[in-house]
Amino acid sequence: MTEEKDYADIGIGASVPTLSRGPISRTQLALFAGASGDHNPIHLDDEQARAGGLDGVIVHGMLMMAILGQMLSGWVSQARIKKFSSRFAAMSVPGDTIICSGIVVDKREEGGEKLADVEIKAENQKGDALLKGMATVIIG
Amino acid sequence: MTEEKDYADIGIGASVPTLSRGPISRTQLALFAGASGDHNPIHLDDEQARAGGLDGVIVHGMLMMAILGQMLSGWVSQARIKKFSSRFAAMSVPGDTIICSGIVVDKREEGGEKLADVEIKAENQKGDALLKGMATVIIG
Repeated sequence: MTEEKDYADIGIGASVPTLSRGPISRTQLALFAGASGDHNPIHLDDEQARAGGLDGVIVHGMLMMAILGQMLSGWVSQARIKKFSSRFAAMSVPGDTIICSGIVVDKREEGGEKLADVEIKAENQKGDALLKGMATVIIG
Repeated sequence: MTEEKDYADIGIGASVPTLSRGPISRTQLALFAGASGDHNPIHLDDEQARAGGLDGVIVHGMLMMAILGQMLSGWVSQARIKKFSSRFAAMSVPGDTIICSGIVVDKREEGGEKLADVEIKAENQKGDALLKGMATVIIG
């Protein structure tokens, strides 16, 4: 998945290759609960999610963020996320596909590091924004 | 774990109850890879991690962020993260314990939401900062 690309090849305005994951299953939520230690029942149990005012279980926000992170770390060889900032815009539910995208908005060298600032977004298959934010990625 | 606490009870300067997880095992990294879909070998295979210039496998940054997120969502009943921003300060390795903490730096009501801004931090058992950032949490 990782493209062999140099820092010089990355232009401002360039798109980060989209990463889609889904449909998200309840099994994946159970696996994520086990792996992360987040056993909040709103991700696992419809009845308890409804008692909390939801229509049913929702996807862990941190799973959506993890998928966004994978898009960035898989973008170029040896990309590393330095900073990650995101706003939760909407909830995601089982059955959704999480579609992640990014656009390079700045490049700069700082403290010997070659950095790219990327505007990032995760949407569902209907085009609803789930997460919106900015990341700074160290390239190479 | 969730405390029954009202927005009015939360003072500026108050600490969010610390959440510690660890020691992080290689099994947990394998589980997190499966659950998140991030199969980057730097989290799973020492040899490949060394080929990439590391001393061995490292913990998924997104797993550290997920633990920080759990501290926030477990803080008060019905807490929801609205915004999350963090800088990766250092890598974590298997055997580390991830210790998350937070301090309320501001409270405000915006668009009908009761918000708390929290300075957040994840450290390892030696006191090395792993992640540092800010989160905005919707209370109640």
